[in-house]
Amino acid sequence: MTLPRKDLFVLPEGVTYLDGNSLGPLPKTAAARLAQAAEAEWGRMLIRGWNDAGWMAQPARLGDAIGRLIGAPEGTTVVGDTLSIKVYQALAAALELRPDRRVILSDTGNFPTDLYMAEGLIRSLGQGHELRLVAPEAVAEAIDEDVAVLMLTEVDYRTGRRHDMPALLARAHEAGALTIWDLAHSAGAVPVDVTAAEADFAVGCTYKYLNAGPGAPAFIHVAPRHAHVTPALSGWLGHAAPFAFETGYRPAGGAERMRVGTPPVLQMAALEAALEVWEDIDMGEIRARSIGLSERFIAGVERACPDLALASPRDPAQRGSQVSFAHPEGYAIVQALIARGVIGDFRGPDILRFGITPLYLDEGDIDRAVSVLAEVMDGRLWDDPAYRTRRAVT
Amino acid sequence: MTLPRKDLFVLPEGVTYLDGNSLGPLPKTAAARLAQAAEAEWGRMLIRGWNDAGWMAQPARLGDAIGRLIGAPEGTTVVGDTLSIKVYQALAAALELRPDRRVILSDTGNFPTDLYMAEGLIRSLGQGHELRLVAPEAVAEAIDEDVAVLMLTEVDYRTGRRHDMPALLARAHEAGALTIWDLAHSAGAVPVDVTAAEADFAVGCTYKYLNAGPGAPAFIHVAPRHAHVTPALSGWLGHAAPFAFETGYRPAGGAERMRVGTPPVLQMAALEAALEVWEDIDMGEIRARSIGLSERFIAGVERACPDLALASPRDPAQRGSQVSFAHPEGYAIVQALIARGVIGDFRGPDILRFGITPLYLDEGDIDRAVSVLAEVMDGRLWDDPAYRTRRAVT
Repeated sequence: MTLPRKDLFVLPEGVTYLDGNSLGPLPKTAAARLAQAAEAEWGRMLIRGWNDAGWMAQPARLGDAIGRLIGAPEGTTVVGDTLSIKVYQALAAALELRPDRRVILSDTGNFPTDLYMAEGLIRSLGQGHELRLVAPEAVAEAIDEDVAVLMLTEVDYRTGRRHDMPALLARAHEAGALTIWDLAHSAGAVPVDVTAAEADFAVGCTYKYLNAGPGAPAFIHVAPRHAHVTPALSGWLGHAAPFAFETGYRPAGGAERMRVGTPPVLQMAALEAALEVWEDIDMGEIRARSIGLSERFIAGVERACPDLALASPRDPAQRGSQVSFAHPEGYAIVQALIARGVIGDFRGPDILRFGITPLYLDEGDIDRAVSVLAEVMDGRLWDDPAYRTRRAVT
Repeated sequence: MTLPRKDLFVLPEGVTYLDGNSLGPLPKTAAARLAQAAEAEWGRMLIRGWNDAGWMAQPARLGDAIGRLIGAPEGTTVVGDTLSIKVYQALAAALELRPDRRVILSDTGNFPTDLYMAEGLIRSLGQGHELRLVAPEAVAEAIDEDVAVLMLTEVDYRTGRRHDMPALLARAHEAGALTIWDLAHSAGAVPVDVTAAEADFAVGCTYKYLNAGPGAPAFIHVAPRHAHVTPALSGWLGHAAPFAFETGYRPAGGAERMRVGTPPVLQMAALEAALEVWEDIDMGEIRARSIGLSERFIAGVERACPDLALASPRDPAQRGSQVSFAHPEGYAIVQALIARGVIGDFRGPDILRFGITPLYLDEGDIDRAVSVLAEVMDGRLWDDPAYRTRRAVT
């Protein structure tokens, strides 16, 4: 075992961090890389940085680095924008490839922004598309010949329930539907192979398990067989010749056409440092350790805190890399935990979320989290008005 | 005169920087502010930064700071995404507000990405909208009752020609059309008052005259009378209650609904530092100095370099804050200048661009630029194969 690699991250004293599924910690090299991008590149190269520091090529280069983590071949993944925008691009492309179908199938556990972006696109298209939402367990049987595209988040953001991606993909393709996989809670968390699974489109963010910082850019993977599609968000950096400044749009080759506007160079610098961490990491080992730590956490919490109900699947094979419990006072409990240095988060109506990130968590962290949680539950320490005031971000 | 404020910026030794119209220099406080966002906020607060460091509120707060520079009232401007995305949002909103009209009127001098994004939207809408392009000089007379929206960049990126925004706005409104103003080359460059001019939508970037760094986020202003429109890019941070995680989209109030996904927190930190510079700056003084320096530059170049043809309007009132010259060897000439520390840029087919930024340029800089340009032209120093190799970014 070569995990954890705590030495690679800034982990504040007195904090047990179980929220890497929401925002990963600062990689030690990221701050220096950011300073370099600001001072040596922006500051000294000025506009020359686009060529001399390689800013222009970075979205494709970092896309390829993410591609290696999700089984995507070179040139099929590109970085930029936010995940919401990448969902929109993938969905618009998929619907264009299935002009005779009108159903976007998703599940009620999907992350809301994916559903909202679909709503907005459907309104713009004005062609009577329907966003059909079913329970996560009902997805397989809801796939029929009306479905243009199956759009799912592989790992549920609330419960950590993991869809059987290869099986659903096979079923979707059998029915003639395309698929979009939101890998927000998968990339860097569980082994993914978009090529083996024959995914059509995959999107994801980089600020959770990939540790690229708050508001880090998203990624999109387009299977080579779909790379001819005309992007709905057809921006100049997705143009075949951006510096020819033509008045008409001509898409670049491959996934590069999914670039839109100017990339966020400073965020890219942090992302670059964050991705270097993965060069030495084996995803199989991550997964094995994630399951081990998760099982230990579940057993510990169930033993010490009988009032908390497991909200994640009990079978590790059906989970991503997070464990959730339900409790009507979930919000206050999480606040009481945070006040004591154990950081998880809350998702309404009653879910306490804990991210299990073997890159920088070990058994000692898990045990400490269990013991603080037991203390908070045993002593009803959450029952304090200060912990009930909802803040903007939960 | 309180300008220039060279003390506020990192200006590399030996460089005369006339490309702030493409990428502004590093404000001295920005690197420290970035380090703070990375180390003290992301590093030490981790996920708590969203509340404790105010990350969630920042796009509206920085939007208001930009609003003050363009005459927009509080709550009507918000920051995020790229300018391409903001153009798309404004255009989708405007077309929705004019459902009975089909023409998007723009000019052939508009920045290509604005036109490309319009193309993409028109395809998605599939309602037979038409992007009608006319010469910049022909815009006024092309405004008729078929026009749904007039979409223009106030200052032409190639020539620096400045549209008469109030006059075109009045004419558009008379014809029942809405207007979108791309202020990419206006905000921080020339006085703008979107309220007095009754602009419907305005968008812009922050990495040019606002000096917020490579890939800094864009902004969008929505006139309060249009703030009820349903966003086409309906992401979760434009939702009325993002942390309620509802499955259906309900837009937030005012311009906040034009937020889409998670804001780029690190880029926002640099933007915040960059906007603080403007608190003490008078846009009237910027404009007066810009005209003074531009006139000095034009006179100097015309005297010393007869082969360069002025490509900008001669009347300062019709220019933004840049001066362009045309020459068939423009690309090589610009490379020869850059090699000698005078940084401008090139836009095909033959335009040499020079940004005039009184915030950190003075008469000495202008005179030095003129003399190096004269040297390059007199000695045909551009006539070197090394200067003819086109790089990715020109």
